[in-house]
Amino acid sequence: MNRKDKIVIIGAGLCGSLLALRLAQRGFKVEVYESRPDLRTVDISAGRSINLALSDRGFKALRLCGVEEQAREICIPMYGRLMHDRAGNTFASNYSGRENEYINSISRGDLNALLLTEAEKHTNVTIHFNKKCKNVDLENNIAHFKDYKTKEEFKVNATVIFGADGAGSSLRKSYYLERKFLFSYSQNYLNHGYKELEIPADKSGNHQISNQHLHIWPRGDFMLIALPNLDGSFTVTLFLSYNEGEFNFANLTSEEKITAFFEKEFPDALAIIPNIKEEFLNNPTGALGTIKCSPWSYQNKTVLMGDAAHAIVPFYGQGMNASFEDVTVFDAVLNENLEDWEAVFKAYQKARKQDTDAIADLAIDNFHEMRDHVANPIFKEKRKIEMDLEKTFPTKYFSKYSLVTFNENIGYDNAMKKGRAQDKALLNLIAGNEVHTHLNMTKNELKVILQKVIIETNAILEEDKIAGL
Amino acid sequence: MNRKDKIVIIGAGLCGSLLALRLAQRGFKVEVYESRPDLRTVDISAGRSINLALSDRGFKALRLCGVEEQAREICIPMYGRLMHDRAGNTFASNYSGRENEYINSISRGDLNALLLTEAEKHTNVTIHFNKKCKNVDLENNIAHFKDYKTKEEFKVNATVIFGADGAGSSLRKSYYLERKFLFSYSQNYLNHGYKELEIPADKSGNHQISNQHLHIWPRGDFMLIALPNLDGSFTVTLFLSYNEGEFNFANLTSEEKITAFFEKEFPDALAIIPNIKEEFLNNPTGALGTIKCSPWSYQNKTVLMGDAAHAIVPFYGQGMNASFEDVTVFDAVLNENLEDWEAVFKAYQKARKQDTDAIADLAIDNFHEMRDHVANPIFKEKRKIEMDLEKTFPTKYFSKYSLVTFNENIGYDNAMKKGRAQDKALLNLIAGNEVHTHLNMTKNELKVILQKVIIETNAILEEDKIAGL
Repeated sequence: MNRKDKIVIIGAGLCGSLLALRLAQRGFKVEVYESRPDLRTVDISAGRSINLALSDRGFKALRLCGVEEQAREICIPMYGRLMHDRAGNTFASNYSGRENEYINSISRGDLNALLLTEAEKHTNVTIHFNKKCKNVDLENNIAHFKDYKTKEEFKVNATVIFGADGAGSSLRKSYYLERKFLFSYSQNYLNHGYKELEIPADKSGNHQISNQHLHIWPRGDFMLIALPNLDGSFTVTLFLSYNEGEFNFANLTSEEKITAFFEKEFPDALAIIPNIKEEFLNNPTGALGTIKCSPWSYQNKTVLMGDAAHAIVPFYGQGMNASFEDVTVFDAVLNENLEDWEAVFKAYQKARKQDTDAIADLAIDNFHEMRDHVANPIFKEKRKIEMDLEKTFPTKYFSKYSLVTFNENIGYDNAMKKGRAQDKALLNLIAGNEVHTHLNMTKNELKVILQKVIIETNAILEEDKIAGL
Repeated sequence: MNRKDKIVIIGAGLCGSLLALRLAQRGFKVEVYESRPDLRTVDISAGRSINLALSDRGFKALRLCGVEEQAREICIPMYGRLMHDRAGNTFASNYSGRENEYINSISRGDLNALLLTEAEKHTNVTIHFNKKCKNVDLENNIAHFKDYKTKEEFKVNATVIFGADGAGSSLRKSYYLERKFLFSYSQNYLNHGYKELEIPADKSGNHQISNQHLHIWPRGDFMLIALPNLDGSFTVTLFLSYNEGEFNFANLTSEEKITAFFEKEFPDALAIIPNIKEEFLNNPTGALGTIKCSPWSYQNKTVLMGDAAHAIVPFYGQGMNASFEDVTVFDAVLNENLEDWEAVFKAYQKARKQDTDAIADLAIDNFHEMRDHVANPIFKEKRKIEMDLEKTFPTKYFSKYSLVTFNENIGYDNAMKKGRAQDKALLNLIAGNEVHTHLNMTKNELKVILQKVIIETNAILEEDKIAGL
């Protein structure tokens, strides 16, 4: 491990560009190869995930790289969910009882542009666009590329290659296909896909619905969500089964059927999505997949990072945050001054893998929770109690959502285990009539509930431990 | 779906040959293609899994096909585990408190030969050996083969193709590589591999250690097991990490190291494995992988069955049983007279998938239990109580092991959920000093324990349900 090592990063997306910035700050010489054109000069969003939720784990990594404040300038805070029913009634549900805990809508393109520009300010960083990695020769550590402009193929030899090339990673594919080692790998798709639509700004350029919320239209088998953009518009995403249920992507094939579906299920949203038919028929339907694998690295040569190592579904709003947190964790491992890259890669996976596995599972849980549980009375009661507890005992109670989203110094795995036990405790206390709520709970009443939750949570964790779970 | 349909089965292993037999009995015309030579004429075991555990789910399928009694004739009953410590002391632990519940050691080759011979008795079955499937053209339903003898390549068109071609299935690989649909897929390897060794018969052809037990030498990080063969020998399997811990496959590279390892850890086994050095150095090291995937079928054309759809690790002794149970479940779906093969395939997966997922997870659990928990005092106490409960209340109490292994009319998934809750209940009752045992428990004392276990188990299941688990 040496400042003269030639480091190649495949992918200049959110993870690759932040990683390039951080490695450059640490003095490494970095070459980045990106398959797409430079998004600062060409619009390449093509109806896909154009805004994302940025929260505390993401900010921690941005802070490490000195770009937190710049990122905050392009953020729109969202303080909670705003649920829309079929009649157009709305119900707010905050993300936390603490005022400083909120998530942020941010443009993927704007944030990526910021990171690219910051990385390129370092003379030891070069970014090559339109260069698609085809595969990596693992033994010789040579990455093979195709230049999308000149159509030429070329190869690049490196000391170390980082695969930050996203869910469809070429490096990961080479791990799978070259079979040089036992490669544990999973790709799991939901039976739902997604499609993006748009609520434009009003004539004055303002948001037509609250820009302080993440909007949700939960309907059990399917769901619509909307996140605000800086220009007054919202990016709307429909999550719908490919082929199951009364309505699905396979049968919503005509303008009439699409309109009828939205009129029945989302009339208030339909009223402000003027180009519904064109967008629905022309925008691509994206798949929702979870990818896990192990090992992430091969010898002292290559390592996977970000979605390439652990792509997740979007329902916890943590995909980008988890990828950024990879950079935080990798940077901390570099601080340990281990003997070589292989030791670094192994220490990195050891420190990181259980947490990325946990957020993958949490994101799947939230898919079910957002579609179903938000309408379940016991779950609603639980959220109310949790808001009261967080407001009244801000240093003592943290819901699972808060542990995952706003507590960047607790790993995802710990957040999951603690959070799940706490959820189970609270739901069972409510179902068993052991806690009761009313509109204006006193501090003493809440203190009794807090004690019960703590005792029950610890009992659940202890019982699981004894059972070897 | 028609008796004239041309049915091709890829693979004439345990699953493929039983499936061929059953489909032939139902009047279908079946062609089977197997990559290996006919094992009735050539010894092809090559130091790999030469005996297996057959139990009630397997027998149920064999019964359906009329070959149960023939299989029983080549079985050696194993009534429990016999644990060996480093000093050579042994401790027996029965599989059940009921006398009629035991598992059976059986030769993979002998059972496969039996099934091939029975299948071939049907004129509507043809089996082709030495024909390796390279891939399947999914759209045109054409399987491509290579003849290992003539080296010629040829293709076979079929109405329906069954991929019963094991953990390395070519059909499954085509699902993965052709990307015609979203294919959820996982391959997960343990960090342990396995190697087979042999305890030969004594001079009179008898077993040198008890042939009524499955022998286990549990050592935490690694483990040796032995299953008896009809010829008086035992097949011994060492499960050991590839590269972790003091001893592993990567560092046991010389005769001295191998002998020193066995002398320290397994002295009583070493004394009766005369060819330890040759076998250890020459026999292959096998990988331990779990494979899950979905969907198992494509349109009305192809379907995966057995290990090709759900390979599992061997620690619950259920791999073969699960594959045979596939045939039972598929046969029951055929009885429903659905409209076409696509409907059959979908109904089959719907009926089967959660159960094969469950046994995969149970087998991983048992890997940990066999290495670690068998020496844990609370787990030992639990086994003692369970034996007493099963003996005293044979129609009322069934341990997880019994639910999984001896209750073929309960699906693996139900067995897992009930069994896990029961284990958790019992372990926590013991740890909390809420149940006590002594050498000669009275029926009334056991009845009190049974009641507590039932109440606690139901409470655990109810609490999980409320928490949405």
